Amino acid sequence: MFQHETKIRVRYAETDQMDVVYHGNYAQYFEVGRTESIRQLGFTYKDMEAMGVVMPIVEWHAKYLRPAHYDELLTIRTILKELPDDHRIEFHQEVYNESEKLLTVGRVVLYFIDAATKQKTSMPEVLKAKLLPYFNA
Amino acid sequence: MFQHETKIRVRYAETDQMDVVYHGNYAQYFEVGRTESIRQLGFTYKDMEAMGVVMPIVEWHAKYLRPAHYDELLTIRTILKELPDDHRIEFHQEVYNESEKLLTVGRVVLYFIDAATKQKTSMPEVLKAKLLPYFNA
Amino acid sequence: MFQHETKIRVRYAETDQMDVVYHGNYAQYFEVGRTESIRQLGFTYKDMEAMGVVMPIVEWHAKYLRPAHYDELLTIRTILKELPDDHRIEFHQEVYNESEKLLTVGRVVLYFIDAATKQKTSMPEVLKAKLLPYFNA
Amino acid sequence: MFQHETKIRVRYAETDQMDVVYHGNYAQYFEVGRTESIRQLGFTYKDMEAMGVVMPIVEWHAKYLRPAHYDELLTIRTILKELPDDHRIEFHQEVYNESEKLLTVGRVVLYFIDAATKQKTSMPEVLKAKLLPYFNA
Repeated sequence: MFQHETKIRVRYAETDQMDVVYHGNYAQYFEVGRTESIRQLGFTYKDMEAMGVVMPIVEWHAKYLRPAHYDELLTIRTILKELPDDHRIEFHQEVYNESEKLLTVGRVVLYFIDAATKQKTSMPEVLKAKLLPYFNA
Repeated sequence: MFQHETKIRVRYAETDQMDVVYHGNYAQYFEVGRTESIRQLGFTYKDMEAMGVVMPIVEWHAKYLRPAHYDELLTIRTILKELPDDHRIEFHQEVYNESEKLLTVGRVVLYFIDAATKQKTSMPEVLKAKLLPYFNA
Repeated sequence: MFQHETKIRVRYAETDQMDVVYHGNYAQYFEVGRTESIRQLGFTYKDMEAMGVVMPIVEWHAKYLRPAHYDELLTIRTILKELPDDHRIEFHQEVYNESEKLLTVGRVVLYFIDAATKQKTSMPEVLKAKLLPYFNA
Repeated sequence: MFQHETKIRVRYAETDQMDVVYHGNYAQYFEVGRTESIRQLGFTYKDMEAMGVVMPIVEWHAKYLRPAHYDELLTIRTILKELPDDHRIEFHQEVYNESEKLLTVGRVVLYFIDAATKQKTSMPEVLKAKLLPYFNA
Protein backbone atom coordinates (compact mmCIF):
# COMPACT_ATOMS: atom_id res chain seq x y z
CA MET A 1 0.00 0.00 0.00
CA PHE A 2 1.20 3.47 -0.81
CA GLN A 3 0.07 6.30 1.43
CA HIS A 4 0.85 9.99 1.58
CA GLU A 5 -0.25 13.06 3.49
CA THR A 6 -0.20 16.71 2.54
CA LYS A 7 -1.55 19.89 4.14
CA ILE A 8 -3.90 22.44 2.61
CA ARG A 9 -4.99 25.69 4.20
CA VAL A 10 -8.64 26.53 3.45
CA ARG A 11 -8.96 29.72 1.38
CA TYR A 12 -11.70 32.29 1.91
CA ALA A 13 -12.75 31.76 -1.70
CA GLU A 14 -13.41 28.11 -0.93
CA THR A 15 -16.07 28.81 1.69
CA ASP A 16 -19.71 29.44 0.89
CA GLN A 17 -22.47 31.21 2.74
CA MET A 18 -23.10 28.11 4.86
CA ASP A 19 -19.74 29.10 6.46
CA VAL A 20 -18.08 25.88 5.36
CA VAL A 21 -15.97 24.71 2.43
CA TYR A 22 -18.19 24.29 -0.64
CA HIS A 23 -18.43 20.56 -1.34
CA GLY A 24 -17.22 20.91 -4.93
CA ASN A 25 -13.87 22.27 -3.76
CA TYR A 26 -12.86 18.88 -2.36
CA ALA A 27 -12.16 17.88 -5.95
CA GLN A 28 -9.25 20.32 -5.81
CA TYR A 29 -8.15 19.11 -2.37
CA PHE A 30 -8.11 15.50 -3.55
CA GLU A 31 -6.26 16.59 -6.72
CA VAL A 32 -3.58 18.31 -4.65
CA GLY A 33 -3.34 15.19 -2.48
CA ARG A 34 -2.75 12.93 -5.49
CA THR A 35 -0.32 15.39 -7.09
CA GLU A 36 1.79 15.70 -3.96
CA SER A 37 1.76 11.95 -3.37
CA ILE A 38 3.31 11.43 -6.80
CA ARG A 39 5.81 14.24 -6.25
CA GLN A 40 6.99 12.58 -3.07
CA LEU A 41 7.96 9.57 -5.20
CA GLY A 42 10.30 11.76 -7.22
CA PHE A 43 8.00 12.00 -10.21
CA THR A 44 5.30 14.51 -11.11
CA TYR A 45 1.99 14.46 -12.90
CA LYS A 46 3.45 17.28 -15.00
CA ASP A 47 6.25 14.93 -16.09
CA MET A 48 3.65 12.38 -17.06
CA GLU A 49 1.79 14.87 -19.26
CA ALA A 50 5.13 15.82 -20.82
CA MET A 51 5.53 12.10 -21.66
CA GLY A 52 2.19 12.21 -23.45
CA VAL A 53 0.05 10.49 -20.81
CA VAL A 54 -2.95 12.25 -19.28
CA MET A 55 -5.17 11.06 -16.46
CA PRO A 56 -8.81 12.08 -16.77
CA ILE A 57 -11.11 11.38 -13.83
CA VAL A 58 -13.72 8.76 -14.68
CA GLU A 59 -15.35 8.39 -11.29
CA TRP A 60 -15.43 10.54 -8.16
CA HIS A 61 -17.13 9.77 -4.91
CA ALA A 62 -17.12 11.44 -1.53
CA LYS A 63 -18.97 11.19 1.77
CA TYR A 64 -19.03 14.42 3.73
CA LEU A 65 -19.05 13.61 7.44
CA ARG A 66 -18.11 16.96 8.98
CA PRO A 67 -17.57 20.40 7.46
CA ALA A 68 -14.24 22.18 6.98
CA HIS A 69 -13.96 25.86 7.86
CA TYR A 70 -12.04 28.88 6.69
CA ASP A 71 -8.34 28.96 7.51
CA GLU A 72 -8.24 25.42 8.87
CA LEU A 73 -5.11 23.50 8.02
CA LEU A 74 -6.46 20.30 6.54
CA THR A 75 -4.60 17.05 6.11
CA ILE A 76 -5.28 15.24 2.85
CA ARG A 77 -4.42 11.55 3.00
CA THR A 78 -4.02 9.81 -0.35
CA ILE A 79 -3.99 6.03 -0.42
CA LEU A 80 -3.24 3.60 -3.23
CA LYS A 81 -4.32 0.14 -2.09
CA GLU A 82 -3.42 -1.68 -5.27
CA LEU A 83 -0.81 -1.18 -7.93
CA PRO A 84 -2.71 -0.93 -11.21
CA ASP A 85 -1.78 -3.35 -13.98
CA ASP A 86 -3.93 -1.78 -16.67
CA HIS A 87 -5.32 1.67 -17.61
CA ARG A 88 -7.31 2.10 -14.40
CA ILE A 89 -6.08 3.53 -11.12
CA GLU A 90 -8.12 4.04 -7.97
CA PHE A 91 -7.18 6.35 -5.13
CA HIS A 92 -8.75 6.52 -1.70
CA GLN A 93 -8.67 9.93 -0.10
CA GLU A 94 -9.40 11.27 3.34
CA VAL A 95 -9.53 14.78 4.74
CA TYR A 96 -8.84 15.53 8.40
CA ASN A 97 -9.01 18.79 10.29
CA GLU A 98 -6.52 20.07 12.88
CA SER A 99 -8.28 18.11 15.62
CA GLU A 100 -7.64 14.97 13.56
CA LYS A 101 -11.35 14.56 12.97
CA LEU A 102 -12.18 12.80 9.71
CA LEU A 103 -14.17 15.24 7.57
CA THR A 104 -14.46 13.59 4.19
CA VAL A 105 -13.72 10.20 2.65
CA GLY A 106 -13.39 9.80 -1.07
CA ARG A 107 -12.58 7.45 -3.88
CA VAL A 108 -11.34 8.64 -7.25
CA VAL A 109 -10.86 6.54 -10.36
CA LEU A 110 -8.68 7.79 -13.20
CA TYR A 111 -7.56 6.29 -16.50
CA PHE A 112 -4.13 6.47 -18.08
CA ILE A 113 -4.77 7.88 -21.55
CA ASP A 114 -2.35 8.40 -24.41
CA ALA A 115 -2.76 12.12 -25.18
CA ALA A 116 -1.93 11.65 -28.87
CA THR A 117 -4.17 8.70 -29.71
CA LYS A 118 -6.77 9.26 -26.96
CA GLN A 119 -6.53 5.52 -26.30
CA LYS A 120 -6.21 3.81 -22.94
CA THR A 121 -2.67 3.05 -21.94
CA SER A 122 -1.01 1.87 -18.77
CA MET A 123 0.98 3.52 -16.01
CA PRO A 124 4.36 4.77 -17.24
CA GLU A 125 7.11 2.37 -16.24
CA VAL A 126 9.06 5.12 -14.50
CA LEU A 127 6.19 5.69 -12.08
CA LYS A 128 5.49 1.98 -11.68
CA ALA A 129 9.09 1.37 -10.70
CA LYS A 130 8.82 4.00 -7.99
CA LEU A 131 5.59 2.55 -6.60
CA LEU A 132 6.61 -1.10 -6.73
CA PRO A 133 8.56 -1.13 -3.44
CA TYR A 134 5.37 -0.18 -1.57
CA PHE A 135 3.54 -3.22 -2.87
CA ASN A 136 6.10 -5.96 -2.41
CA ALA A 137 5.15 -8.60 0.08
CA MET B 1 -41.02 10.82 -10.12
CA PHE B 2 -40.05 14.46 -10.45
CA GLN B 3 -37.76 15.43 -13.31
CA HIS B 4 -36.42 18.73 -14.56
CA GLU B 5 -33.96 19.99 -17.19
CA THR B 6 -31.96 23.17 -17.31
CA LYS B 7 -29.24 24.48 -19.64
CA ILE B 8 -25.75 25.65 -18.70
CA ARG B 9 -23.20 27.17 -21.06
CA VAL B 10 -19.62 26.07 -20.28
CA ARG B 11 -17.46 29.00 -19.19
CA TYR B 12 -13.82 29.36 -20.19
CA ALA B 13 -12.90 29.43 -16.51
CA GLU B 14 -14.40 25.97 -16.13
CA THR B 15 -12.03 24.32 -18.59
CA ASP B 16 -8.59 23.06 -17.69
CA GLN B 17 -5.48 22.43 -19.73
CA MET B 18 -6.83 19.03 -20.80
CA ASP B 19 -9.23 21.18 -22.90
CA VAL B 20 -12.29 19.87 -21.07
CA VAL B 21 -14.42 20.93 -18.14
CA TYR B 22 -12.53 20.27 -14.90
CA HIS B 23 -14.30 17.42 -13.14
CA GLY B 24 -14.81 19.38 -9.91
CA ASN B 25 -16.97 21.93 -11.72
CA TYR B 26 -19.78 19.41 -12.16
CA ALA B 27 -20.59 20.02 -8.50
CA GLN B 28 -21.70 23.49 -9.60
CA TYR B 29 -23.59 22.16 -12.62
CA PHE B 30 -25.48 19.68 -10.47
CA GLU B 31 -26.15 22.44 -7.93
CA VAL B 32 -27.64 24.66 -10.63
CA GLY B 33 -29.74 21.72 -11.82
CA ARG B 34 -31.18 21.13 -8.36
CA THR B 35 -31.73 24.84 -7.76
CA GLU B 36 -33.61 25.34 -11.01
CA SER B 37 -35.67 22.19 -10.50
CA ILE B 38 -36.94 23.61 -7.21
CA ARG B 39 -37.56 27.04 -8.75
CA GLN B 40 -39.70 25.45 -11.41
CA LEU B 41 -41.98 24.22 -8.60
CA GLY B 42 -42.56 27.80 -7.52
CA PHE B 43 -40.23 27.59 -4.53
CA THR B 44 -36.55 28.36 -4.15
CA TYR B 45 -33.66 27.03 -2.15
CA LYS B 46 -33.15 30.66 -1.08
CA ASP B 47 -36.68 30.64 0.39
CA MET B 48 -35.79 27.50 2.28
CA GLU B 49 -32.69 29.07 3.83
CA ALA B 50 -34.83 32.10 4.74
CA MET B 51 -37.11 29.64 6.57
CA GLY B 52 -34.11 28.41 8.54
CA VAL B 53 -33.50 25.14 6.72
CA VAL B 54 -30.17 24.44 5.00
CA MET B 55 -29.21 21.48 2.86
CA PRO B 56 -25.60 20.41 3.18
CA ILE B 57 -24.32 17.76 0.78
CA VAL B 58 -23.49 14.51 2.57
CA GLU B 59 -22.63 12.36 -0.42
CA TRP B 60 -21.66 13.11 -4.01
CA HIS B 61 -20.94 10.64 -6.74
CA ALA B 62 -20.35 10.98 -10.45
CA LYS B 63 -19.24 8.84 -13.35
CA TYR B 64 -17.60 10.77 -16.16
CA LEU B 65 -18.34 9.06 -19.46
CA ARG B 66 -17.43 11.78 -21.97
CA PRO B 67 -15.88 15.23 -21.56
CA ALA B 68 -17.64 18.57 -21.90
CA HIS B 69 -15.95 21.37 -23.81
CA TYR B 70 -15.80 25.14 -23.73
CA ASP B 71 -18.92 26.97 -24.88
CA GLU B 72 -21.04 23.85 -25.15
CA LEU B 73 -24.63 24.30 -24.05
CA LEU B 74 -25.12 21.45 -21.62
CA THR B 75 -28.41 20.03 -20.43
CA ILE B 76 -28.56 19.16 -16.76
CA ARG B 77 -31.28 16.68 -15.90
CA THR B 78 -32.28 16.48 -12.24
CA ILE B 79 -34.36 13.54 -11.08
CA LEU B 80 -36.05 12.85 -7.78
CA LYS B 81 -37.13 9.21 -7.78
CA GLU B 82 -38.59 9.18 -4.30
CA LEU B 83 -40.27 11.77 -2.13
CA PRO B 84 -38.27 11.87 1.09
CA ASP B 85 -40.10 11.26 4.32
CA ASP B 86 -37.23 12.11 6.65
CA HIS B 87 -34.12 14.33 6.67
CA ARG B 88 -32.49 12.69 3.66
CA ILE B 89 -33.03 13.52 0.00
CA GLU B 90 -31.33 11.91 -2.96
CA PHE B 91 -31.10 13.42 -6.42
CA HIS B 92 -29.99 11.70 -9.60
CA GLN B 93 -28.36 13.98 -12.11
CA GLU B 94 -27.31 13.65 -15.73
CA VAL B 95 -25.42 15.94 -18.05
CA TYR B 96 -25.91 15.85 -21.82
CA ASN B 97 -24.16 17.80 -24.54
CA GLU B 98 -25.76 19.41 -27.60
CA SER B 99 -25.60 16.11 -29.51
CA GLU B 100 -27.65 14.58 -26.68
CA LYS B 101 -24.72 12.41 -25.66
CA LEU B 102 -24.71 11.50 -21.99
CA LEU B 103 -21.53 12.96 -20.47
CA THR B 104 -21.91 12.46 -16.75
CA VAL B 105 -24.23 10.66 -14.37
CA GLY B 106 -24.39 11.58 -10.73
CA ARG B 107 -26.09 10.98 -7.45
CA VAL B 108 -26.19 13.56 -4.68
CA VAL B 109 -27.47 13.08 -1.16
CA LEU B 110 -28.35 16.06 1.01
CA TYR B 111 -29.82 16.44 4.48
CA PHE B 112 -32.44 18.90 5.64
CA ILE B 113 -30.83 20.66 8.60
CA ASP B 114 -32.32 23.22 10.95
CA ALA B 115 -29.89 26.14 10.65
CA ALA B 116 -30.49 27.29 14.22
CA THR B 117 -30.17 23.99 16.08
CA LYS B 118 -27.94 22.19 13.53
CA GLN B 119 -30.23 19.20 13.97
CA LYS B 120 -31.74 17.07 11.24
CA THR B 121 -35.18 18.13 10.19
CA SER B 122 -37.49 17.19 7.35
CA MET B 123 -38.49 18.76 4.06
CA PRO B 124 -40.52 21.95 4.59
CA GLU B 125 -44.22 21.26 4.08
CA VAL B 126 -44.50 24.00 1.47
CA LEU B 127 -42.01 22.17 -0.76
CA LYS B 128 -43.47 18.75 -0.01
CA ALA B 129 -46.90 19.95 -1.10
CA LYS B 130 -45.49 21.08 -4.42
CA LEU B 131 -43.71 17.79 -5.02
CA LEU B 132 -46.53 15.51 -3.94
CA PRO B 133 -48.47 15.60 -7.24
CA TYR B 134 -45.45 14.08 -9.01
CA PHE B 135 -45.46 11.05 -6.73
CA ASN B 136 -49.12 10.14 -6.58
CA ALA B 137 -49.98 6.79 -8.07
CA MET C 1 -20.26 52.11 -29.35
CA PHE C 2 -21.20 48.47 -29.00
CA GLN C 3 -23.14 47.43 -25.94
CA HIS C 4 -24.67 44.18 -24.79
CA GLU C 5 -26.44 42.77 -21.74
CA THR C 6 -26.69 39.25 -20.45
CA LYS C 7 -28.11 37.68 -17.30
CA ILE C 8 -26.33 35.45 -14.80
CA ARG C 9 -27.89 33.73 -11.82
CA VAL C 10 -25.56 33.67 -8.78
CA ARG C 11 -24.60 30.11 -7.84
CA TYR C 12 -24.25 28.92 -4.24
CA ALA C 13 -20.65 27.98 -5.00
CA GLU C 14 -19.92 31.60 -5.88
CA THR C 15 -20.79 32.94 -2.44
CA ASP C 16 -18.35 33.02 0.47
CA GLN C 17 -18.85 33.12 4.21
CA MET C 18 -19.37 36.90 4.06
CA ASP C 19 -22.71 35.90 2.43
CA VAL C 20 -21.85 37.67 -0.82
CA VAL C 21 -20.32 36.72 -4.16
CA TYR C 22 -16.57 36.24 -3.74
CA HIS C 23 -14.87 39.09 -5.53
CA GLY C 24 -12.74 36.82 -7.71
CA ASN C 25 -15.84 35.32 -9.32
CA TYR C 26 -16.58 38.55 -11.17
CA ALA C 27 -13.81 37.55 -13.56
CA GLN C 28 -16.14 34.77 -14.70
CA TYR C 29 -19.15 37.07 -14.83
CA PHE C 30 -17.26 39.55 -17.00
CA GLU C 31 -16.00 36.68 -19.19
CA VAL C 32 -19.57 35.46 -19.74
CA GLY C 33 -20.59 39.04 -20.57
CA ARG C 34 -17.88 39.37 -23.22
CA THR C 35 -18.58 35.90 -24.63
CA GLU C 36 -22.30 36.53 -24.99
CA SER C 37 -21.73 39.98 -26.49
CA ILE C 38 -19.68 38.40 -29.27
CA ARG C 39 -22.22 35.59 -29.75
CA GLN C 40 -24.95 38.17 -30.25
CA LEU C 41 -22.95 39.45 -33.24
CA GLY C 42 -23.17 36.04 -34.85
CA PHE C 43 -19.62 35.06 -34.02
CA THR C 44 -18.12 33.25 -31.05
CA TYR C 45 -14.93 33.35 -29.10
CA LYS C 46 -14.79 29.61 -29.75
CA ASP C 47 -14.77 30.33 -33.50
CA MET C 48 -11.91 32.72 -32.95
CA GLU C 49 -9.82 30.11 -31.15
CA ALA C 50 -10.62 27.68 -33.97
CA MET C 51 -9.17 30.31 -36.34
CA GLY C 52 -5.96 30.30 -34.31
CA VAL C 53 -6.46 33.55 -32.40
CA VAL C 54 -6.55 33.59 -28.60
CA MET C 55 -7.30 36.51 -26.31
CA PRO C 56 -5.38 36.48 -23.04
CA ILE C 57 -6.32 39.07 -20.41
CA VAL C 58 -3.53 41.58 -19.87
CA GLU C 59 -5.28 43.92 -17.43
CA TRP C 60 -8.30 43.57 -15.18
CA HIS C 61 -9.79 46.20 -12.95
CA ALA C 62 -12.96 46.38 -10.89
CA LYS C 63 -14.53 48.61 -8.29
CA TYR C 64 -16.95 46.82 -6.00
CA LEU C 65 -19.70 49.22 -4.96
CA ARG C 66 -22.32 46.86 -3.56
CA PRO C 67 -22.35 43.11 -2.97
CA ALA C 68 -24.21 40.50 -5.00
CA HIS C 69 -26.06 37.72 -3.17
CA TYR C 70 -26.96 34.12 -3.74
CA ASP C 71 -29.63 33.43 -6.35
CA GLU C 72 -29.81 37.02 -7.58
CA LEU C 73 -30.28 37.37 -11.30
CA LEU C 74 -27.51 39.77 -12.27
CA THR C 75 -27.29 41.81 -15.43
CA ILE C 76 -23.83 42.00 -16.96
CA ARG C 77 -23.40 44.95 -19.29
CA THR C 78 -20.47 44.74 -21.70
CA ILE C 79 -19.41 47.89 -23.52
CA LEU C 80 -16.92 48.43 -26.31
CA LYS C 81 -16.32 52.16 -26.61
CA GLU C 82 -13.76 51.99 -29.39
CA LEU C 83 -13.18 49.63 -32.25
CA PRO C 84 -9.60 48.40 -31.87
CA ASP C 85 -7.23 48.89 -34.78
CA ASP C 86 -4.35 46.89 -33.36
CA HIS C 87 -3.78 43.93 -31.01
CA ARG C 88 -5.39 45.58 -28.00
CA ILE C 89 -9.06 45.59 -27.06
CA GLU C 90 -10.63 47.18 -24.00
CA PHE C 91 -14.03 46.30 -22.59
CA HIS C 92 -15.98 48.17 -19.96
CA GLN C 93 -18.22 46.03 -17.85
CA GLU C 94 -20.96 46.70 -15.32
CA VAL C 95 -22.95 44.42 -13.06
CA TYR C 96 -26.46 45.31 -11.88
CA ASN C 97 -28.76 43.46 -9.51
CA GLU C 98 -32.50 42.92 -9.93
CA SER C 99 -33.23 46.35 -8.39
CA GLU C 100 -31.06 47.85 -11.13
CA LYS C 101 -28.48 48.91 -8.59
CA LEU C 102 -24.97 49.11 -9.97
CA LEU C 103 -22.84 46.58 -8.05
CA THR C 104 -19.54 46.51 -9.88
CA VAL C 105 -17.80 48.44 -12.63
CA GLY C 106 -14.88 46.96 -14.48
CA ARG C 107 -12.44 47.40 -17.27
CA VAL C 108 -10.71 44.51 -19.01
CA VAL C 109 -7.91 44.68 -21.55
CA LEU C 110 -7.15 41.73 -23.79
CA TYR C 111 -4.71 41.16 -26.63
CA PHE C 112 -5.32 39.34 -29.89
CA ILE C 113 -2.58 36.71 -30.04
CA ASP C 114 -1.74 34.28 -32.81
CA ALA C 115 -1.91 30.91 -31.05
CA ALA C 116 0.72 29.36 -33.31
CA THR C 117 3.39 32.06 -33.23
CA LYS C 118 2.44 33.59 -29.84
CA GLN C 119 2.79 36.97 -31.54
CA LYS C 120 0.40 39.88 -31.31
CA THR C 121 -2.08 40.02 -34.11
CA SER C 122 -5.22 42.05 -34.77
CA MET C 123 -8.92 41.41 -34.54
CA PRO C 124 -10.09 38.87 -37.14
CA GLU C 125 -11.71 40.61 -40.10
CA VAL C 126 -14.90 38.58 -39.73
CA LEU C 127 -15.44 40.00 -36.25
CA LYS C 128 -14.40 43.51 -37.24
CA ALA C 129 -16.96 43.51 -40.05
CA LYS C 130 -19.69 42.63 -37.59
CA LEU C 131 -18.68 45.37 -35.15
CA LEU C 132 -18.13 48.12 -37.71
CA PRO C 133 -21.79 49.13 -38.04
CA TYR C 134 -21.84 50.08 -34.34
CA PHE C 135 -18.99 52.52 -34.78
CA ASN C 136 -19.98 54.38 -37.95
CA ALA C 137 -20.72 58.04 -37.50
CA MET D 1 6.85 49.32 4.69
CA PHE D 2 5.62 45.85 5.48
CA GLN D 3 6.41 43.09 3.03
CA HIS D 4 5.82 39.35 2.99
CA GLU D 5 6.26 36.42 0.65
CA THR D 6 4.45 33.13 0.45
CA LYS D 7 4.50 30.23 -2.00
CA ILE D 8 1.57 28.73 -3.89
CA ARG D 9 1.68 25.65 -6.10
CA VAL D 10 -0.56 26.00 -9.20
CA ARG D 11 -3.40 23.45 -9.15
CA TYR D 12 -4.64 21.68 -12.27
CA ALA D 13 -8.09 23.11 -11.56
CA GLU D 14 -6.64 26.61 -11.84
CA THR D 15 -5.50 26.20 -15.45
CA ASP D 16 -7.74 26.75 -18.43
CA GLN D 17 -7.60 25.49 -21.99
CA MET D 18 -5.09 28.22 -22.91
CA ASP D 19 -2.71 26.08 -20.77
CA VAL D 20 -2.18 28.87 -18.26
CA VAL D 21 -3.68 29.92 -14.94
CA TYR D 22 -7.11 31.46 -15.52
CA HIS D 23 -6.79 35.16 -14.77
CA GLY D 24 -9.62 35.14 -12.24
CA ASN D 25 -7.73 32.74 -10.00
CA TYR D 26 -5.18 35.41 -9.09
CA ALA D 27 -7.84 36.81 -6.77
CA GLN D 28 -7.31 33.69 -4.69
CA TYR D 29 -3.53 33.91 -4.95
CA PHE D 30 -3.57 37.52 -3.77
CA GLU D 31 -5.99 36.56 -0.98
CA VAL D 32 -3.63 33.82 0.21
CA GLY D 33 -0.76 36.31 0.07
CA ARG D 34 -2.59 38.82 2.28
CA THR D 35 -3.79 36.11 4.67
CA GLU D 36 -0.31 34.68 5.16
CA SER D 37 1.23 38.14 5.54
CA ILE D 38 -1.10 38.81 8.48
CA ARG D 39 -0.48 35.36 9.96
CA GLN D 40 3.25 36.05 9.95
CA LEU D 41 2.54 39.01 12.26
CA GLY D 42 1.01 36.64 14.79
CA PHE D 43 -2.56 37.58 13.98
CA THR D 44 -5.05 36.13 11.52
CA TYR D 45 -7.83 37.38 9.35
CA LYS D 46 -9.94 34.69 11.04
CA ASP D 47 -9.21 36.34 14.40
CA MET D 48 -10.35 39.64 12.96
CA GLU D 49 -13.67 38.19 11.80
CA ALA D 50 -14.08 36.64 15.26
CA MET D 51 -13.65 40.20 16.63
CA GLY D 52 -16.51 41.32 14.40
CA VAL D 53 -14.50 43.08 11.70
CA VAL D 54 -14.72 41.96 8.06
CA MET D 55 -12.71 43.19 5.11
CA PRO D 56 -14.61 43.28 1.83
CA ILE D 57 -12.65 44.04 -1.33
CA VAL D 58 -13.66 47.39 -2.82
CA GLU D 59 -11.15 47.59 -5.64
CA TRP D 60 -9.00 45.01 -7.42
CA HIS D 61 -6.53 45.65 -10.18
CA ALA D 62 -3.97 43.48 -11.92
CA LYS D 63 -1.67 43.62 -14.90
CA TYR D 64 -0.82 40.25 -16.37
CA LEU D 65 2.68 40.34 -17.81
CA ARG D 66 3.47 36.65 -18.23
CA PRO D 67 1.38 33.52 -17.72
CA ALA D 68 1.69 31.02 -14.88
CA HIS D 69 1.57 27.32 -15.65
CA TYR D 70 0.40 24.14 -14.01
CA ASP D 71 2.49 22.89 -11.08
CA GLU D 72 4.71 25.97 -10.94
CA LEU D 73 5.63 27.08 -7.45
CA LEU D 74 4.69 30.75 -7.46
CA THR D 75 5.89 33.39 -5.04
CA ILE D 76 3.24 35.86 -3.93
CA ARG D 77 4.69 39.08 -2.58
CA THR D 78 2.34 41.22 -0.48
CA ILE D 79 3.33 44.80 0.26
CA LEU D 80 1.79 47.38 2.55
CA LYS D 81 3.35 50.73 1.71
CA GLU D 82 1.36 52.78 4.19
CA LEU D 83 -0.16 52.05 7.55
CA PRO D 84 -3.86 52.91 7.22
CA ASP D 85 -5.30 55.44 9.62
CA ASP D 86 -8.94 55.03 8.60
CA HIS D 87 -11.22 52.32 7.16
CA ARG D 88 -9.22 51.88 3.95
CA ILE D 89 -6.23 49.62 3.38
CA GLU D 90 -4.34 49.15 0.14
CA PHE D 91 -2.10 46.19 -0.65
CA HIS D 92 0.32 45.87 -3.53
CA GLN D 93 0.84 42.33 -4.73
CA GLU D 94 3.25 40.65 -7.09
CA VAL D 95 3.48 37.12 -8.43
CA TYR D 96 6.79 35.57 -9.50
CA ASN D 97 7.50 32.19 -11.03
CA GLU D 98 10.37 29.86 -10.15
CA SER D 99 12.70 31.71 -12.55
CA GLU D 100 11.96 34.86 -10.54
CA LYS D 101 10.16 36.37 -13.51
CA LEU D 102 7.45 38.84 -12.54
CA LEU D 103 4.14 37.46 -13.84
CA THR D 104 1.51 39.71 -12.35
CA VAL D 105 1.33 42.97 -10.44
CA GLY D 106 -1.74 43.92 -8.51
CA ARG D 107 -3.29 46.41 -6.17
CA VAL D 108 -6.14 45.56 -3.85
CA VAL D 109 -8.16 47.96 -1.72
CA LEU D 110 -10.21 46.68 1.21
CA TYR D 111 -12.32 48.38 3.86
CA PHE D 112 -12.52 47.54 7.54
CA ILE D 113 -16.22 46.99 8.19
CA ASP D 114 -18.01 46.33 11.46
CA ALA D 115 -19.86 43.08 10.75
CA ALA D 116 -22.70 43.93 13.14
CA THR D 117 -23.46 47.50 12.04
CA LYS D 118 -22.14 47.20 8.45
CA GLN D 119 -20.45 50.55 9.07
CA LYS D 120 -16.89 51.47 8.22
CA THR D 121 -14.49 51.05 11.09
CA SER D 122 -10.72 51.13 11.41
CA MET D 123 -7.98 48.55 11.72
CA PRO D 124 -8.18 46.66 15.03
CA GLU D 125 -5.60 48.00 17.48
CA VAL D 126 -4.08 44.56 17.99
CA LEU D 127 -3.16 44.39 14.31
CA LYS D 128 -2.05 48.00 14.16
CA ALA D 129 0.33 47.42 17.05
CA LYS D 130 1.93 44.53 15.19
CA LEU D 131 2.35 46.54 12.00
CA LEU D 132 3.62 49.73 13.62
CA PRO D 133 7.27 48.63 13.94
CA TYR D 134 7.49 48.30 10.14
CA PHE D 135 6.49 51.92 9.63
CA ASN D 136 8.58 53.73 12.20
CA ALA D 137 11.11 56.10 10.77
